[in-house]
Amino acid sequence: KMLGRVLCTVLFVGAFPSPAEASQGHISVVLLGATGDLARKYLWQGLFQLYMDQVSSGHSFTFHGAALAALEPGPRRMRMFDVLKKLSCPPGEAPDRCAVLKDQFLKLSQYHQLKTAENYTALSREIETLLRQEGLKEAGRIFYFSVPPFAYTEIARHINSSCRPPAGAWLRVVLEKPFGHDLQSAQQLAAQLAGCFREEEMYRVDHYLGKQAVAHILPFRDQNRQLLDPIWNRHHVERMEVVLKETVDAKGRTSFYEQYGVIRDVLQNHLTEALMFLIMELPANVSSAPEVVQHKLQAFQSLWGLERSSAVLGQYQAYDSQVQEELQEARGYVSTTPTFAGVLIRSDSLRWEGVPFLLTSGKALDERVGYARVLFKNRAYCTQSGTLRDAGHSQCKPKQIIFHFGHGALNTPAVLVSRNLFQPAMPKDSWKEAEARSDLHVFGQPLSDFYVYSPVKERDAYSVLISHIYHGRKDFFITTESLLASWAFWTPLLDSTSRQPPRLYPGGVENQQLLDFEMVSGGVAFALAEPAELLSPGGQMPSDFRAIQSKFRQSPLVSAWAEDLISRLASDMEEAAARSVARSGQFHLALSGGSSPVVLFQRLARHHYGFPWKHTHIWLVDERCVPLTDSESNFQGLHRHLLQRVRVPYFNIHPMPVHLNRRLCVEEDGGAELYAGDIAALVANASFDLVLLGVGTDGHTASLFPRSESGLDGAPTVVLTESPVKPHQRMSLSLPLINRARQVFVLVLGKGKHNITTLLSRVGHEPRKWPISGVSPSSGQLVWYVDYEALLG
Amino acid sequence: KMLGRVLCTVLFVGAFPSPAEASQGHISVVLLGATGDLARKYLWQGLFQLYMDQVSSGHSFTFHGAALAALEPGPRRMRMFDVLKKLSCPPGEAPDRCAVLKDQFLKLSQYHQLKTAENYTALSREIETLLRQEGLKEAGRIFYFSVPPFAYTEIARHINSSCRPPAGAWLRVVLEKPFGHDLQSAQQLAAQLAGCFREEEMYRVDHYLGKQAVAHILPFRDQNRQLLDPIWNRHHVERMEVVLKETVDAKGRTSFYEQYGVIRDVLQNHLTEALMFLIMELPANVSSAPEVVQHKLQAFQSLWGLERSSAVLGQYQAYDSQVQEELQEARGYVSTTPTFAGVLIRSDSLRWEGVPFLLTSGKALDERVGYARVLFKNRAYCTQSGTLRDAGHSQCKPKQIIFHFGHGALNTPAVLVSRNLFQPAMPKDSWKEAEARSDLHVFGQPLSDFYVYSPVKERDAYSVLISHIYHGRKDFFITTESLLASWAFWTPLLDSTSRQPPRLYPGGVENQQLLDFEMVSGGVAFALAEPAELLSPGGQMPSDFRAIQSKFRQSPLVSAWAEDLISRLASDMEEAAARSVARSGQFHLALSGGSSPVVLFQRLARHHYGFPWKHTHIWLVDERCVPLTDSESNFQGLHRHLLQRVRVPYFNIHPMPVHLNRRLCVEEDGGAELYAGDIAALVANASFDLVLLGVGTDGHTASLFPRSESGLDGAPTVVLTESPVKPHQRMSLSLPLINRARQVFVLVLGKGKHNITTLLSRVGHEPRKWPISGVSPSSGQLVWYVDYEALLG
Repeated sequence: KMLGRVLCTVLFVGAFPSPAEASQGHISVVLLGATGDLARKYLWQGLFQLYMDQVSSGHSFTFHGAALAALEPGPRRMRMFDVLKKLSCPPGEAPDRCAVLKDQFLKLSQYHQLKTAENYTALSREIETLLRQEGLKEAGRIFYFSVPPFAYTEIARHINSSCRPPAGAWLRVVLEKPFGHDLQSAQQLAAQLAGCFREEEMYRVDHYLGKQAVAHILPFRDQNRQLLDPIWNRHHVERMEVVLKETVDAKGRTSFYEQYGVIRDVLQNHLTEALMFLIMELPANVSSAPEVVQHKLQAFQSLWGLERSSAVLGQYQAYDSQVQEELQEARGYVSTTPTFAGVLIRSDSLRWEGVPFLLTSGKALDERVGYARVLFKNRAYCTQSGTLRDAGHSQCKPKQIIFHFGHGALNTPAVLVSRNLFQPAMPKDSWKEAEARSDLHVFGQPLSDFYVYSPVKERDAYSVLISHIYHGRKDFFITTESLLASWAFWTPLLDSTSRQPPRLYPGGVENQQLLDFEMVSGGVAFALAEPAELLSPGGQMPSDFRAIQSKFRQSPLVSAWAEDLISRLASDMEEAAARSVARSGQFHLALSGGSSPVVLFQRLARHHYGFPWKHTHIWLVDERCVPLTDSESNFQGLHRHLLQRVRVPYFNIHPMPVHLNRRLCVEEDGGAELYAGDIAALVANASFDLVLLGVGTDGHTASLFPRSESGLDGAPTVVLTESPVKPHQRMSLSLPLINRARQVFVLVLGKGKHNITTLLSRVGHEPRKWPISGVSPSSGQLVWYVDYEALLG
Repeated sequence: KMLGRVLCTVLFVGAFPSPAEASQGHISVVLLGATGDLARKYLWQGLFQLYMDQVSSGHSFTFHGAALAALEPGPRRMRMFDVLKKLSCPPGEAPDRCAVLKDQFLKLSQYHQLKTAENYTALSREIETLLRQEGLKEAGRIFYFSVPPFAYTEIARHINSSCRPPAGAWLRVVLEKPFGHDLQSAQQLAAQLAGCFREEEMYRVDHYLGKQAVAHILPFRDQNRQLLDPIWNRHHVERMEVVLKETVDAKGRTSFYEQYGVIRDVLQNHLTEALMFLIMELPANVSSAPEVVQHKLQAFQSLWGLERSSAVLGQYQAYDSQVQEELQEARGYVSTTPTFAGVLIRSDSLRWEGVPFLLTSGKALDERVGYARVLFKNRAYCTQSGTLRDAGHSQCKPKQIIFHFGHGALNTPAVLVSRNLFQPAMPKDSWKEAEARSDLHVFGQPLSDFYVYSPVKERDAYSVLISHIYHGRKDFFITTESLLASWAFWTPLLDSTSRQPPRLYPGGVENQQLLDFEMVSGGVAFALAEPAELLSPGGQMPSDFRAIQSKFRQSPLVSAWAEDLISRLASDMEEAAARSVARSGQFHLALSGGSSPVVLFQRLARHHYGFPWKHTHIWLVDERCVPLTDSESNFQGLHRHLLQRVRVPYFNIHPMPVHLNRRLCVEEDGGAELYAGDIAALVANASFDLVLLGVGTDGHTASLFPRSESGLDGAPTVVLTESPVKPHQRMSLSLPLINRARQVFVLVLGKGKHNITTLLSRVGHEPRKWPISGVSPSSGQLVWYVDYEALLG
């Protein structure tokens, strides 16, 4: 009944389309959580903007504010209409027209309680009835979820079962973060939503994608393709920074913040999305959602996995007491939730290899500003002395491109390009050259050193995104795939830092240089040593991570959490290599395959620049009888994770000859003898400098399995063996050959190895039962590297 | 008789040692060219300083000024004594003592005419007689050659034959540059000198090694070893610059300058020496001459060869008219002698790979200054906004270490270290902290950002070096080996740029940004395009270097000077690779060995970052039957010059199996069949995407020799062949296999190939006589790349 009246009014003022004009059909927008913070601050204004923009589009609209809670509709409804009455007219809009449209918008808006399935059915019926009465075709329904994530699943089910539009009309559900808090929870939520909606029906909002400067990154790269192409790579780019600095703290929001922290709140989503726009290969069509997603996923693929050392974390000093107060925690409660993070991200791609990407965000910092900055290398030598040089736009001045999200000294979204780079092509209808402000210095340079563009019309991110939802521009939203790719990328860091106490900082300008951080051997670290006076009053934090050293089976044992253990093992290997090269000019290293050494290989490749690869010979401890290029091949894994990243001479690489005469491990081809011959010819005394072994849950090591017919005793040689699991055929160094080594390191990682570790701690020398128990270098040293999980379960 | 008197006087004033005190013996210093420029300006003062410093050393001295020319001794002698009378007393010296010593010095100094062998014999006798008379033992003789280089050989012969000191006393001959003007002339001169003197008798002066800031580079690295070690490498150093800027021009010296130019005058010696001190591995003992030389030679070994694109050259505009006037050249005379050079040098060492070293020098520039500067990378992210950051010594400010040779704003030798690096250890007796000068900005920063040290006592380079000669400190002089290493390094650049017209510049501050240069794909280029109005009035220079295209044996011919030809070939190869990968996902490339492709391989590795190596398979066209690690092996050359620098997956590298079962190319081992099988298995249709061939002077190609019994016809396969030269046994693709390729490029370089090229241009298809004439891809394309020398002789 209400809508009937509304339509009459509308027709009377002549601004609402007649049924004939509304030939594009009717759109119902349902805002779930209509009286919440986000709705009050941005969403209603965005919907009103949509209405103003699209009132003559041929679509008609109704807006349905809804709340979940079983409260009386009365006060909620009033609260909602209070918000609606305060909607503002944008600066560019004629006041008369706006006033009329606002009046209409109010009349087109209703309040609903949506809780039970019946509520949803009723809403659906109401829409259908109305449209039938008015003779309107239904174009589609938009459900905007501005509700806490725990409510998602139920609402989704209700919409799917009771409130889908009829065939021919579309459904768009708009989801607000958080979309999970790690990979597993995100996968779970995604699976639940996938049970209710098709991928194309879901619009996951990252409001940064509605920010004008972020949204313009890809178009900018596209429109300046020719000028950027030669310099948008590792040869020209020194680093990229994506930064969101806030002055506010988490006060009043700690119940949310304590569960999430800065990485989940800002880095995993907003900053990552901006970074992806910078580093993805440029799609041929930058507004094609499938192309953009595909390129974004490829960019994720190219990133190095994050480790604990990839990040520095901080927490402003007042945070703990805020949490204690707001969450009623005890006085001594200490939170490890970071409110500041600096993260180093690296890519393996040909384009970006070696270029550091730094993502930084924090609360209680000295200024409020957000930007993505591409800093170019200085490749010039300028002959003139400094003073003369600074006058012009010398090639020796810094060169940078900055997408300025907002706030800061500029206090506007902007795109800045150093004048010594090029004058960019910018779309005249949406970006204008900003006026010169000679007093201003930004990013270390006077503003006059840049071409500066700001939006012709500043638009709120949510208005922009609501318009994109209306237009079905899926390229401005996060797909399930890319969401999960981002969580897959961030979750290891979240896991490995969850127990780490963040550095405390006072907040604001007093932070001084306390949060400055530096790149150090593959990771980052705070530039200043921890200042003692700022440590938490509790004094020393217990260091969970210290490597402990002891004995295991009468040999030295190094034990620590996996990451520390690997880092210690890698250092010990480099030391062994250096010693060996100093002694004999060479280092003969025999490596095992499998999954445990992968992290070790990555660590060696990324952190050990000083490793004498040039003088290192790489041998295989064992191999599966598959072609070397097979993904099952141990050598293939070794190649992918280590050899292709370091410079071992071709001649020093010794894969096992499992594939001779186009067949695999055939006795007569003599592969084992060939390998033994190579070892005899190249390795003095057939004594490897270092053999790296693993242990299987059945006590096997190398490819020597319990009750193996060969390799457990006899001559020091290379043997063909049988594995109980596929691929069955294997080639392996024999135990006697392994035991000739100068050093043997055994790496044991993970809970799954706890039982065998416990067993091995008790049993004696019984290689027939547990081949690993036969490892006992006759004149060399054996060291066990066992992580806490394997050791302690 | 004169000396007798002198000794009396000396004994009288008590400053000259008695014969007993002069127990270290007597030293005769002979200054050849005693009235020349250098002697007048520096050398006599240096000798006087030596006398002042060593008067109480236990040595007694005489100083013999000598001239070559057959002029009357009268006026020359007077001129010399005029110089001596004007010798100054250094600031620190007590005026009384100095006056006495100066008087003595004058009396100890004599004038000689040294022209004929008899003159030398007479001088020698005179010294001997004197010493006998005075009862002094002879310690040694110093001959300082301050004469033009054409006179060296004759003087050397005279000294050697007629003026050597008696057994037990040493001979030191001091030589001033130029030491040749290219490798060949330097070798010649070195050989002539070696006929007269032992290496340890020769002291080749590079007066930069006497400059206090240059001489302190190695001690600084040594004394700050621990702090520098972690950062003195490619991970921390962004670039190094060694610079000598002059404001004067060559006026009045063009007769010398026109023959040498800035590279020979400054870069080959002074700047190179300073660079070597920066980049050499630090010797355990930095004052051990043999260790320093050895490390310097290793550093030279690590440098990439210079190419034409390694340098930018300039010439101040007035130079031509100065040459015309001073050398009586015709009005239209155009000199290509550079008066400005910027050179990019790179090293292959593990420590410096990828770090650019920029050497720059020029006349008629905007300021006079010399320095060696190590600029470190910014590895920090500073959280504070710029204004707050600049107040302190933030990690984000530039970090640099500068050895300031002199002049410039500082106007003193100095060592500067950024305060955000570390406070260096400096020897207190010779370097003091400089006083703060808040107004001064140097190297882009206020002076207060640096720790600044200047010498306690500024000393002229020649005084320093003369003292080192006296003390026999050979580490401050250029050995023959290191001289030749430097010429070997610079000569290819001198050769390849000798015909290149330098960019003209107006001189002084008017140069503006005209001489700024940038690093571009492996070389350097001026940052500004050549401004038309500054071109020489002659207008367009003929471009000798344009690649010409035509036909050869009915196939396309590309011809140019060797360097351009290689660069064109490399580009064409990259294009072929990109096309092939786009078409089939792979690029099968068969490469020849030998010397011609080496430059090509280097070019591909250094300039072609976009080459799809990851998808490229590398095959060998032919191989010598030697182990792969043998230096004769084609694969070894390919590995050294290409494979170890690019990232071809291990599985994609296909060396020929010439070494099976520990023996070489034995028929029964089936290596040729194995290779043919690999090709059949991996290369679609056994049709390589590109085969690169060369041509021998006998018309052979691949390892297919005239009248070969196999490989010239028959099946497309791999064959064992016999070479007329060692090693005789070869493995080679057969002609029919080569002719299946999609593209075949033949590279022919050098005068030595002129005859066969001429012959081939006339003959038809006669593979039995000239196997190369049988190359004719059945459905592919053949392109000839022949340089001008091979084509035109």
